[in-house]
Amino acid sequence: MKYLGIFYKPELFNKALSLKNLLLNEGYTVDYCESSERIKNNKVDLTIVLGGDGTFLKASHLVNNPLVGFKGGRLGFLSSYTIEEFDKFLKDLKNDNFVLDERTFLKVSELNAFCLNEVLLIKDPDQKMVDIKISFQDGELFFHADGIMLGTPTGSTGYSLSLGGPILLPNTKAFVITPVAPQFLASRSIVIPDNEKVNIEVDESVNLIIDGANFGKFSKVTVLKSKKKISILRPIDYDFTKSIKEKLGYGKKFL
Amino acid sequence: MKYLGIFYKPELFNKALSLKNLLLNEGYTVDYCESSERIKNNKVDLTIVLGGDGTFLKASHLVNNPLVGFKGGRLGFLSSYTIEEFDKFLKDLKNDNFVLDERTFLKVSELNAFCLNEVLLIKDPDQKMVDIKISFQDGELFFHADGIMLGTPTGSTGYSLSLGGPILLPNTKAFVITPVAPQFLASRSIVIPDNEKVNIEVDESVNLIIDGANFGKFSKVTVLKSKKKISILRPIDYDFTKSIKEKLGYGKKFL
Repeated sequence: MKYLGIFYKPELFNKALSLKNLLLNEGYTVDYCESSERIKNNKVDLTIVLGGDGTFLKASHLVNNPLVGFKGGRLGFLSSYTIEEFDKFLKDLKNDNFVLDERTFLKVSELNAFCLNEVLLIKDPDQKMVDIKISFQDGELFFHADGIMLGTPTGSTGYSLSLGGPILLPNTKAFVITPVAPQFLASRSIVIPDNEKVNIEVDESVNLIIDGANFGKFSKVTVLKSKKKISILRPIDYDFTKSIKEKLGYGKKFL
Repeated sequence: MKYLGIFYKPELFNKALSLKNLLLNEGYTVDYCESSERIKNNKVDLTIVLGGDGTFLKASHLVNNPLVGFKGGRLGFLSSYTIEEFDKFLKDLKNDNFVLDERTFLKVSELNAFCLNEVLLIKDPDQKMVDIKISFQDGELFFHADGIMLGTPTGSTGYSLSLGGPILLPNTKAFVITPVAPQFLASRSIVIPDNEKVNIEVDESVNLIIDGANFGKFSKVTVLKSKKKISILRPIDYDFTKSIKEKLGYGKKFL
């Protein structure tokens, strides 16, 4: 890995600049940008993301090669190091001392758009509750609710968790569907195999939000597993349960 | 399918007797028993279960050939017909007019015991809360709770649901772990790939309940996917979402 890209949140311009100089000094070729245009060409071996999970999600849509995230915000399931750990990262990179953490994407057919966390169909704040029909190979379900979310295992620690959903280990071959504020108590999540093609129909047009970005109003979308995958570079001692213990306190040992 | 077994709940003796005569009249060979001994030999092509999900669970442990359940109780995710539908079933059987619904089992290594619904480790009512450690390939988690449940997709509509767990479509290659009355808010379920081997350690001996049957006190068990599977005969129009809509009202259309 000699050709590195840096993708940074505007607020972290200074950090990005100093990292760039550090990497150039170490003999790496660096493609350095705030905009996504140059990373998009996938020439870099590794994209370094400076920012929170939101920045990482954006970057993940643009590249197919491995990424590594440096945490800016409070939570960061997608980041592997804190910004203070540049030196540790450089050492790990030199020594090839990391593991690759593979993550699955969803695809929204109508837009050919990728999704690492979740696809959310949600009404406007002043809109009435909507009727939603979900159908897949194994049947169909109806919800009268504010909206519906279909998430990946990666997304299960994101907004899905706020909606009351379960945590899915990253390598679980499944997706999770959770209604948003459903009527009639049906607030439980449903976990489906990742080879299901999910059709969502809403009786009114609602906002289609993919990984936090609004794609406009839709009343019908088809969501399925994408061929796109990414690998996230992780420190050699990374394990997923560590991150949910540290970041959520879930399954943490209290002494 | 010419050699049929009948496995019935004692209360349904009369129903079993009349079904036996019906089947003999139709030219089937019938192995008819309340006790499990004769079904155990797996000579029958199909085991007919008369009773609720509890009776079905028992039967499922004893056979490897297909089963078909006739509902006695109020809920019945495992039953395919009501007891009143004998005639419809006979017609379906003759015409080979059904689908096979395959279900996965867990295995508790220490006992070589099979589990179709859930493995539950739970303290006695007058025992103090226990410290539980769960470990698998991807890490480890700790809970201070009354107990812990590891369930299959089949079990996800059983006790797992009462504990607040998600619903898993039957063919999802995953298991679900849910703590029972955990301290410190960590009450969410965690969904894991079905190829994980799960070690559960408790700081005190607690009850090991497998599919509702108490196997005595244990402080350490290893649970993993079993090679054992069963096929459940279903009417041709069966789909899992129908049963959760009808039995739980989940995802049901309200007009």
